[in-house]
Amino acid sequence: MKFDRILLEHGGGGLLSNNLIAETFLPLLQNTYLERLEDGAVFDVGGVRLCISTDSYVVNPLFFPGGNIGSLAVHGTVNDISMCGGKPLYLSCGFIIEEGFPTADLERIIRSMGEAAANAGVQIVTGDTKVVAKGAADGLFINTSGIGVVEYPSVISVRSIRPGDLVIVNGPIGDHGAAVMSKRQELGYETDVVSDSAPLNSLVADILKASPNVHCMRDATRGGLGAILAEIAGQADLEITIAEKDIPVREEVKGICEILGLDPLFLANEGKMIVFCPEADAPAVLAAMRAHPYGRDAVLIGRVEKGIRGRLIMATIIGGSREVDLPVGELVPRIC
Amino acid sequence: MKFDRILLEHGGGGLLSNNLIAETFLPLLQNTYLERLEDGAVFDVGGVRLCISTDSYVVNPLFFPGGNIGSLAVHGTVNDISMCGGKPLYLSCGFIIEEGFPTADLERIIRSMGEAAANAGVQIVTGDTKVVAKGAADGLFINTSGIGVVEYPSVISVRSIRPGDLVIVNGPIGDHGAAVMSKRQELGYETDVVSDSAPLNSLVADILKASPNVHCMRDATRGGLGAILAEIAGQADLEITIAEKDIPVREEVKGICEILGLDPLFLANEGKMIVFCPEADAPAVLAAMRAHPYGRDAVLIGRVEKGIRGRLIMATIIGGSREVDLPVGELVPRIC
Repeated sequence: MKFDRILLEHGGGGLLSNNLIAETFLPLLQNTYLERLEDGAVFDVGGVRLCISTDSYVVNPLFFPGGNIGSLAVHGTVNDISMCGGKPLYLSCGFIIEEGFPTADLERIIRSMGEAAANAGVQIVTGDTKVVAKGAADGLFINTSGIGVVEYPSVISVRSIRPGDLVIVNGPIGDHGAAVMSKRQELGYETDVVSDSAPLNSLVADILKASPNVHCMRDATRGGLGAILAEIAGQADLEITIAEKDIPVREEVKGICEILGLDPLFLANEGKMIVFCPEADAPAVLAAMRAHPYGRDAVLIGRVEKGIRGRLIMATIIGGSREVDLPVGELVPRIC
Repeated sequence: MKFDRILLEHGGGGLLSNNLIAETFLPLLQNTYLERLEDGAVFDVGGVRLCISTDSYVVNPLFFPGGNIGSLAVHGTVNDISMCGGKPLYLSCGFIIEEGFPTADLERIIRSMGEAAANAGVQIVTGDTKVVAKGAADGLFINTSGIGVVEYPSVISVRSIRPGDLVIVNGPIGDHGAAVMSKRQELGYETDVVSDSAPLNSLVADILKASPNVHCMRDATRGGLGAILAEIAGQADLEITIAEKDIPVREEVKGICEILGLDPLFLANEGKMIVFCPEADAPAVLAAMRAHPYGRDAVLIGRVEKGIRGRLIMATIIGGSREVDLPVGELVPRIC
């Protein structure tokens, strides 16, 4: 279904986001790279396999427990490149600044970007700054784009997922969404939930070293684990089954979700990733992840089955099972 | 001088833009690529020389005579990569859309991007879409980033400019700025000035084929020919002399500038570039430019001299000469 006007839900990472891309962007910009709908595009230049990725960050508030828009903008693009199997090398940054924005805040944000880049082992090598009049933007938006080199021999893609693959996540979900929401809303109490925003490139390097058969990786950002897995199931046209009891969620995150009426399954993460690999390789992948600081709590959460069509099925804690759909509404706008 | 808050002038392409980059971005993100202050960054990956560039587009209005934000966003990044001597290959796009934005306008803009990319021979291979609430952005902002391969053997950079180099521009200046301003302001009459927005990559390919000694290329966008040349003179620490009588400006553009109190020298272009090359190579470069549709009106406008310090000197039509400074104020906000 098409809408005359863009809704907030078109940016939520759910069904309407997917429709906007499928119905508007793909037909008008048609090429095989875009149609793959991965986190980035992989191509060869002069015999070298490269990948690029881009993301604009509009998170609100700009500063949140565990990070700010600057560190987030670096981690997000580093992670998107990593999910394509790329080793991120260089980033660009584009700033859109609202007139009147405090210079001290800008400096704090840029400093965080520099630190995040140094921690991730990448360099911010080119940039652009625009200023718009007061009221024409909400404080600050940052775009980062990046380039990485892909050395992994097999193709990491939704298209590589096979029935029998196991699904692994690197730790508890929902921290980023809960941290941002706890800062945005009045919870009535102090929480110690911090965003999981982190660069996953070195974890990914360890995963790829552990197994030559990693089929797909995806970071569970906007839309959360639930939306990303439902999307992948649809794209792969395979059934993914997960067990609710195996999905790690911190008690504090559960608490915030109860107060705000949110489901951690659909809450954004900025340092969580899903790995699809054959069952035989799962022990090695899990061991490699658990040996890494960003994968200490890695667990197996599901399995890919042939199924009758691409869908995500969750075995619930109370003993039943249900299909998890792509969320239709906007759960948490401007979460990244 | 530092300001507590970001001013519109910090985005104008003049002195305050340069100060913001020099005082805030460079010290916090320090690396040798950024410090070069070129239109993009050039580096090697696996033995292949690449360049990347990024720009965010906030032009107002979104549709203007000769183009729209979509075609502009493609041309701008194609041109920035070209100015580094790169052959642009792949672009990313990041959309920040205000809730309520008309879907038909979005489609028109994306269609223009697709057409502009096809005309320039590049592909838009990855993207991102964010939606922010009504009032949190002014309609639509687009970031494009891009990657190109650099095959030209010598270094195209401000640092390569030498005394004795000649300065060539590929045609009349100020068209883009005048077209956008004529649409934004009430002129009281119809004008037929259209933006010069165009992809310059094939023109650049012809220039580089014509001479192995091109020292520097720059597109004269935000800040116009005057700001770009003054900036280059400062960066190169050489004196650039230009003759006002040789600088091509259309009569209609002069007319709009008189009405609106603007100087075409500082009016943005989106299809105009400056070439620096040794005197001996200038005839071949000029001939190659004039044989190309986007360089038909190419002319020699100046020369690089040793000078006492980096500055831009213009011989005026009335017979005197004056130093052209980087503009301090914001001439035309949101011109690109």
